[in-house]
Amino acid sequence: MAEIDILELEDFALELAHTAGGIAQAHFRQPVTVENKGVSSFDPVTNADRAIERVLRTAIVARYPEHGIVAEEEGERAGSSDYTWLIEPIDGTRAFMTGSPLWGTLIGLVRGRKPLFGLLAQPVLEEVFFGGPSGSWLIKAERRDRLRSRACTSLARAVLASTHPDMFSGERAAAFDALRARCLLTRFGGDCYNYAMLAAGHLDLVVEGQLKPYDIVPLLPILQGAGCVVTDWEGQPPLAGGNVIAAGSRELHQAALELLRGSRL
Amino acid sequence: MAEIDILELEDFALELAHTAGGIAQAHFRQPVTVENKGVSSFDPVTNADRAIERVLRTAIVARYPEHGIVAEEEGERAGSSDYTWLIEPIDGTRAFMTGSPLWGTLIGLVRGRKPLFGLLAQPVLEEVFFGGPSGSWLIKAERRDRLRSRACTSLARAVLASTHPDMFSGERAAAFDALRARCLLTRFGGDCYNYAMLAAGHLDLVVEGQLKPYDIVPLLPILQGAGCVVTDWEGQPPLAGGNVIAAGSRELHQAALELLRGSRL
Repeated sequence: MAEIDILELEDFALELAHTAGGIAQAHFRQPVTVENKGVSSFDPVTNADRAIERVLRTAIVARYPEHGIVAEEEGERAGSSDYTWLIEPIDGTRAFMTGSPLWGTLIGLVRGRKPLFGLLAQPVLEEVFFGGPSGSWLIKAERRDRLRSRACTSLARAVLASTHPDMFSGERAAAFDALRARCLLTRFGGDCYNYAMLAAGHLDLVVEGQLKPYDIVPLLPILQGAGCVVTDWEGQPPLAGGNVIAAGSRELHQAALELLRGSRL
Repeated sequence: MAEIDILELEDFALELAHTAGGIAQAHFRQPVTVENKGVSSFDPVTNADRAIERVLRTAIVARYPEHGIVAEEEGERAGSSDYTWLIEPIDGTRAFMTGSPLWGTLIGLVRGRKPLFGLLAQPVLEEVFFGGPSGSWLIKAERRDRLRSRACTSLARAVLASTHPDMFSGERAAAFDALRARCLLTRFGGDCYNYAMLAAGHLDLVVEGQLKPYDIVPLLPILQGAGCVVTDWEGQPPLAGGNVIAAGSRELHQAALELLRGSRL
């Protein structure tokens, strides 16, 4: 199967991010239609989520009809090649609908099971966090700054972030509480933006649950290229989403993993 | 005692906000010195907090030497007039030190016990939320948009925000949990920015604890001018800080107040 130049794919992804940003900005802080797609709980989707996904899917199918797509709102489109795009039109819909800029459009490309590159676009702040073969970068206006995690190695000095305490229940909630009792500070909120701040060296640890593949796979190249270690709560690559531990250093990741495992024995 | 023109005072406050923004931006996402000023818990202060407060105090004393000052880091300065400035150099120090833009400089002026005007300046987003005799406004670049809360009247449809679940303990924690179980959605994080989003009609309810006067008094004119109702958990004006209920409508405020009181009987 023909190899596509990675730079061409990266440029296309950045174009998609730009397109998504325009649509998101047009809807942000405007009266939006919020629907509840949850069955037992409130799981909002806005017309902005749907509009972005529709436009990005159409652009991908037009440019790379052989590629697969996995996205939040309309599900999977099988491709005839081993390239698959993962799209989360707005990660942080609850932030978006409450006026906070801490949300992002996530776009990632995997080949087989290998993430090639990924990005998080935050148009209000005019930021794109990008990770790929060239490393991890914060792209803002004409500037590119290399992302680098910071070297905190002990839980006692670690700043932990997680979107919401309700992400965990039962023994996982107890394990998470045990972890946060050991950390210097816990911040809630943030959604995907927490991972960007981890890659940029402003946080030490992000621990979450209930993620979907498109919530985390596009972030893996950004995190890994910045020196972070990311696994699920069993220590495996989080390619299927689920429960995630992302740390700015190998030592801190190990400490968090051991504590989360030990608390559930 | 001589009356000072309110527009002159407002212009001066906006100058202070501009000055604070420049200092904050220079420190934001840079390696900062974080000190722990807490006794039993982690209560961070950065060199940015201290630098901003120092510069604003100096400017106020130079321009209005007869005015009092109440501020977070250096405490109170008694004045010889009945004007007092309330200054929170960075509300959301934990957000600031973790790279999130959801913090703000709060500046308010009271005469006797009456708040005259107040502002929240967020320089990364280039926003100033201002409330005073002319109403409540979001000032961004050359534009001024009037702030107006939204008319949600029932807890079941309300989006609640609060900075951190650990703001509450004992019976207050139980009361807060009872409240959030009744609301549509709860968002954590946000600090002062939650009040700005309440005034702008993107949230319905903000409930917090352990506030200091300079954390809430500068926000009162913004909130009240936008149609919000703000009291402490006893239904009194929150001029001393403490526990706060701020709602976008009178009905919703009443429902939250009754529930929080009832849960503690």
